[in-house]
Amino acid sequence: MAGKKKLNVAMIGYNFMGRAHTQAWRNAPIYFDTAYEPVLKVVCGRHEKPLNDFAARWGWRETATDWREVVNRDDIDVVDVATPTATHHDIAISAARAGKHIFCEKPFATNVAQAKAMLAAVRKAGITHYLNHNYRRCPAVVLAKQLIDAGKIGRIFHWRGAYLQSWIVDPNFPLVWQLQKEHAGSGPHGDLNSHNVDLARYLVGEIKAVSATTASFIKERPLPSAGSAAFQGGAKGGKRGKVTVEDACFMNAEFVNGALGSFNATRFALGRKNYNFFEVYGSRGALAFNLERMNELEFFSEDDPSCARGFRTILVTESEHPYISHWWPPGHIIGYEHEFTHAVVDFLEAVSKGKPIYPNFQDGLKIVQVLEAGLKSAATGKRVMVAR
Amino acid sequence: MAGKKKLNVAMIGYNFMGRAHTQAWRNAPIYFDTAYEPVLKVVCGRHEKPLNDFAARWGWRETATDWREVVNRDDIDVVDVATPTATHHDIAISAARAGKHIFCEKPFATNVAQAKAMLAAVRKAGITHYLNHNYRRCPAVVLAKQLIDAGKIGRIFHWRGAYLQSWIVDPNFPLVWQLQKEHAGSGPHGDLNSHNVDLARYLVGEIKAVSATTASFIKERPLPSAGSAAFQGGAKGGKRGKVTVEDACFMNAEFVNGALGSFNATRFALGRKNYNFFEVYGSRGALAFNLERMNELEFFSEDDPSCARGFRTILVTESEHPYISHWWPPGHIIGYEHEFTHAVVDFLEAVSKGKPIYPNFQDGLKIVQVLEAGLKSAATGKRVMVAR
Amino acid sequence: MAGKKKLNVAMIGYNFMGRAHTQAWRNAPIYFDTAYEPVLKVVCGRHEKPLNDFAARWGWRETATDWREVVNRDDIDVVDVATPTATHHDIAISAARAGKHIFCEKPFATNVAQAKAMLAAVRKAGITHYLNHNYRRCPAVVLAKQLIDAGKIGRIFHWRGAYLQSWIVDPNFPLVWQLQKEHAGSGPHGDLNSHNVDLARYLVGEIKAVSATTASFIKERPLPSAGSAAFQGGAKGGKRGKVTVEDACFMNAEFVNGALGSFNATRFALGRKNYNFFEVYGSRGALAFNLERMNELEFFSEDDPSCARGFRTILVTESEHPYISHWWPPGHIIGYEHEFTHAVVDFLEAVSKGKPIYPNFQDGLKIVQVLEAGLKSAATGKRVMVAR
Amino acid sequence: MAGKKKLNVAMIGYNFMGRAHTQAWRNAPIYFDTAYEPVLKVVCGRHEKPLNDFAARWGWRETATDWREVVNRDDIDVVDVATPTATHHDIAISAARAGKHIFCEKPFATNVAQAKAMLAAVRKAGITHYLNHNYRRCPAVVLAKQLIDAGKIGRIFHWRGAYLQSWIVDPNFPLVWQLQKEHAGSGPHGDLNSHNVDLARYLVGEIKAVSATTASFIKERPLPSAGSAAFQGGAKGGKRGKVTVEDACFMNAEFVNGALGSFNATRFALGRKNYNFFEVYGSRGALAFNLERMNELEFFSEDDPSCARGFRTILVTESEHPYISHWWPPGHIIGYEHEFTHAVVDFLEAVSKGKPIYPNFQDGLKIVQVLEAGLKSAATGKRVMVAR
Repeated sequence: MAGKKKLNVAMIGYNFMGRAHTQAWRNAPIYFDTAYEPVLKVVCGRHEKPLNDFAARWGWRETATDWREVVNRDDIDVVDVATPTATHHDIAISAARAGKHIFCEKPFATNVAQAKAMLAAVRKAGITHYLNHNYRRCPAVVLAKQLIDAGKIGRIFHWRGAYLQSWIVDPNFPLVWQLQKEHAGSGPHGDLNSHNVDLARYLVGEIKAVSATTASFIKERPLPSAGSAAFQGGAKGGKRGKVTVEDACFMNAEFVNGALGSFNATRFALGRKNYNFFEVYGSRGALAFNLERMNELEFFSEDDPSCARGFRTILVTESEHPYISHWWPPGHIIGYEHEFTHAVVDFLEAVSKGKPIYPNFQDGLKIVQVLEAGLKSAATGKRVMVAR
Repeated sequence: MAGKKKLNVAMIGYNFMGRAHTQAWRNAPIYFDTAYEPVLKVVCGRHEKPLNDFAARWGWRETATDWREVVNRDDIDVVDVATPTATHHDIAISAARAGKHIFCEKPFATNVAQAKAMLAAVRKAGITHYLNHNYRRCPAVVLAKQLIDAGKIGRIFHWRGAYLQSWIVDPNFPLVWQLQKEHAGSGPHGDLNSHNVDLARYLVGEIKAVSATTASFIKERPLPSAGSAAFQGGAKGGKRGKVTVEDACFMNAEFVNGALGSFNATRFALGRKNYNFFEVYGSRGALAFNLERMNELEFFSEDDPSCARGFRTILVTESEHPYISHWWPPGHIIGYEHEFTHAVVDFLEAVSKGKPIYPNFQDGLKIVQVLEAGLKSAATGKRVMVAR
Repeated sequence: MAGKKKLNVAMIGYNFMGRAHTQAWRNAPIYFDTAYEPVLKVVCGRHEKPLNDFAARWGWRETATDWREVVNRDDIDVVDVATPTATHHDIAISAARAGKHIFCEKPFATNVAQAKAMLAAVRKAGITHYLNHNYRRCPAVVLAKQLIDAGKIGRIFHWRGAYLQSWIVDPNFPLVWQLQKEHAGSGPHGDLNSHNVDLARYLVGEIKAVSATTASFIKERPLPSAGSAAFQGGAKGGKRGKVTVEDACFMNAEFVNGALGSFNATRFALGRKNYNFFEVYGSRGALAFNLERMNELEFFSEDDPSCARGFRTILVTESEHPYISHWWPPGHIIGYEHEFTHAVVDFLEAVSKGKPIYPNFQDGLKIVQVLEAGLKSAATGKRVMVAR
Repeated sequence: MAGKKKLNVAMIGYNFMGRAHTQAWRNAPIYFDTAYEPVLKVVCGRHEKPLNDFAARWGWRETATDWREVVNRDDIDVVDVATPTATHHDIAISAARAGKHIFCEKPFATNVAQAKAMLAAVRKAGITHYLNHNYRRCPAVVLAKQLIDAGKIGRIFHWRGAYLQSWIVDPNFPLVWQLQKEHAGSGPHGDLNSHNVDLARYLVGEIKAVSATTASFIKERPLPSAGSAAFQGGAKGGKRGKVTVEDACFMNAEFVNGALGSFNATRFALGRKNYNFFEVYGSRGALAFNLERMNELEFFSEDDPSCARGFRTILVTESEHPYISHWWPPGHIIGYEHEFTHAVVDFLEAVSKGKPIYPNFQDGLKIVQVLEAGLKSAATGKRVMVAR
């Protein structure tokens, strides 16, 4: 990779997503023939000790604690936003103004106003912007898209999406930032339904109207000890605080093309860990996907002989499948983080060609518009048209 | 069975449900120790030729074409209502007035007004009334109820129900009675969501409010040839008529106990034949069931060692499982119609003891109230409280 | 069925198999258009009280305790042999000599000498003989055969068969007749591998040579109390007896056509109840079947687009599937006993046409030849050629 | 990782296994707190151009073409043997004589004589030796071992192992080295059964005697074009050569502890890509594993309430599961190559502590003894005792 052009990356944030992003920047140019060699230039966080440990372990050359300074550095080409949702707006707009390409973690923004400002900023800046709904880069999901585009599903009647987790069923699980409206904007609706809305838009099309209902099961929780993160817990003392986001949100949707869809998001589904599930039903076939078995896609086809139809489980590990030829032989599955590597590969390609990558901030706005309509519906008890 | 008391049955209707009911009346006293020996006294229908063929084949002693006369015969103890929904009201009320016990096929009624009148009639008559939501008599479903009642699921957070079929995806499938509002009342909402609402009430509890959205994909269909029935088709000539019921209905619901639920009913889900599916999520465990694998129940339990938790597939064919000791050894599965046999067994027991059986006309009213709220929600775009 | 010709049946034996056979004789003419109406003329057993109870419950007109007398009655057309294996030889030969058609339960015989004599007798008598390896009449298995015959699997490379049960894992399970060589001939090899060998011959072809290994885990067991049957237990007092059959037998086989196969039979596989499983691998496709999900067949086809291949789960409940049009609509599954009904339907057809039905006593001999070669291999540690 | 001790690695071979090993040496110290920081010092191969490309892409500091020189370099601490089987003997013995720790890819050796010499050499040298049967480092497999060791399975009755692939079903797939006896020693027996024998010894115990049967379906194949590798193909011209290894080997085995096992290895199972499957049946529970779903373990337990038993699917992604706390949150699955990372982590620990790691060359010898007994059995048609 000696002669390859370099692209300097600054990453803001270094927790769960920081790790997933870093391995992607590292692995993309090894497994794939990327246009650039990304350089792990600087990682930015607020707490020096863990930040330095992270940088040393993962190979970031420098650390910094002031993201505003970082995004304005001349030697930075790409800003990778891996922080909680509520901070995306300020970081992304600053980075755009500084002319940096942006690789932004989801959820995009906490509301439509933020989302519109972010989109306006990147459009004005003319930079490459990417919103990391990583499941679009799961090979099985891309295969689903290819089958739909090839007409194998036909006219689509239904989307049945669910994103089920269980990490806060325990009432003593602490009040991490994901459970606080000022940091997260909303609960599983923003965190999980956002993924499903992204996938539904990708595979089915735009959403016209929604009806949503939320539920709240545990109203107060112990305050977290310093550094406790999602999925882990660790409460401090006896103090408790209010949960200010919903615990679950079930939403039904009408698509512009007439399809009828459902979106079930919850963190109260024992036995489901990261169960991002969808089914697509059409006039020629059907699809089913479950992230916990992310190397598989289920496909039903009316093209099969009528006596021998059924959902087939495609093990999406053939060299002809999306991204797979760069990994292992058939039947040797890939893991969760590989999706991030694929995202970086495609992002580098987009930067190199000056062409858009999807989903991007435009998609981010549309997703937030759907989600906000959902919250409005839940609050008012009425079906809400999605702004267009 | 020589000395067993006899109970004379009159069955109105003799198509798909007529066959399922008849085998149940025949098999119940053989496999089980029933209180009565049911006598297949008279079967009633409008078309003499097929009616006589049916009676000869299945062992009904007499036939009749006027149900009003039949339900008033002195030698009849039980009226089995196996006709299209819209006729249930008149038949059931007449049978009740004549003092007959009633075994009534679902859907119960086409609207709340009918349902109330039917319930009032059976209450006044003091007879045994049963509404045949047969899936409550699937051993796996009863086991689900037992696990819930034993506290294995804990506080219930979610019901995720779906009833997916695909028999009318073909636009040339004819306009059978199930697609006509005057005969069926509604489409999959009444036909399929009624089953799911029954199961949700059985397993989770009463429903407080609903939000529903319907979809219509095929607006006109060929008129059916005489005698064509659901699942089969057979169009006559080129004439077409209007589909007057919905093609799909997705409904979300709030339960009185705070649980949040979803109900997805459609006849446009290719690959699903009779996919009556539900999941129940609680604070101690979770359950999943799929009618296409009706001998199995999936169960997740927090009581398992934390390193070894997961959904387990219980093959519900052990002699200790509900109803099973009367059938075959472990691992030898039972079929769809066995549920009807169980229903007859329990019905005979209820008649014998003078005790209620569930679901009955009281449940029928409550189900119709939920369904009617759903249709109102779909029409108005508003969340609708369920009448109580 | 008024005008239908009658066929008088005498059934010898009335336990588990007696029940399964009886329901078949009763249901065949109802669900199917059989050539004859079977008459449940006489059931024969040794213990009068339970025999009479059985006859009354199931509708047998007469009872008898001497099978020799029964098989020679002039008014009997068919002898149904539903007794333990060791008795088949005498009953079948007597019935054949009396010119009765024979419907014989499996396992066929305890050794090759018996099997040869039985085959000779029925050939000489010129009657219709059937050996009830019932799984050949499971719709999914017949569909497997149809796919193979249509070339969808291509040249067959492998058979991987297993029949796993767990009903004697408990060392206190009593010494029922199935565990005694003088009654059963052998253990799971004869009981379970016989089914698998039958299916392998049906789907793949004749077997040339076998290598087998047996295991014995529990050497002694409590003597059973009177009337305790397979799958149930019930020991009497403290007396123990020797288990004289193997507990498990694993056999590999070379087929005449070059395929390589495995047969694993055991009663020591916890979690498996009636797990009759097979896989067939060929040059164009593959199949997998599991009796515990007997309404399903898994099918892999190289005819699928290369990007979208995978095992598909065919729910074998379509009206075009074997036998199914006589039962319920798509997605409404059938149960274990329905296979017996199919067997009776085909048997009546064979009797009516004077044509052979398969498997019959000829197949029985071939199966016993394979099984006996397996036992010889296990005893000698050598590969054994199957007699032809 | 600034202050961490370094360990210089020389890797011989750089194809499929070279990539899998390299990522492991790179990732181990990032995700885990390893005792050493491995240095990718030198990679060795015969063809300079691809070798240099590989080294540049993957970060190896130097390249070399003479492995004998490399294994004797003073600055090398570890020799990683990632070459075809037939070369393991010479490389490993030279490396041992030079006092290098050895990380050796499987299959271990082509015969028992080689295996004995290799074991003697490492014993004499006193170095750390590891044989990379990587599936022992799949978290689900380690969990299986933990459940067995905790008594959850009880006395083991059965091992049912299969390793099914399909990459040479096409008769035009070329004659790669894996199909030539002089390079590979044997076919799927050595390549795939070796994995299964390793897992069986790990989970069940030592094997006493075996009976095996092999099959050969395609006798000749096109010669490969230069550089064509397993799983890929690419034939040159019309020349053909003889396949000198078996195409499939089915083996049954008696374990020292009395368990009865089966091992089915084939490359002719369409639909199976890397289907390394096993079941373990014991007196208290049972286990099932399939590498194509390597993040899952199926577990049946008699400790469950009798009404609620069944195989449960454990998603082995909890932080308490082996290795998992170093990766992602629950439900975020890992991929094939992560097993290699785990192997490097454990290998570094073993080197650091001077303690053995398993499996090692001692295990390699035992595995080869079982495999050689299997081939002898296949050739002679007799059960063969395994040398001990």
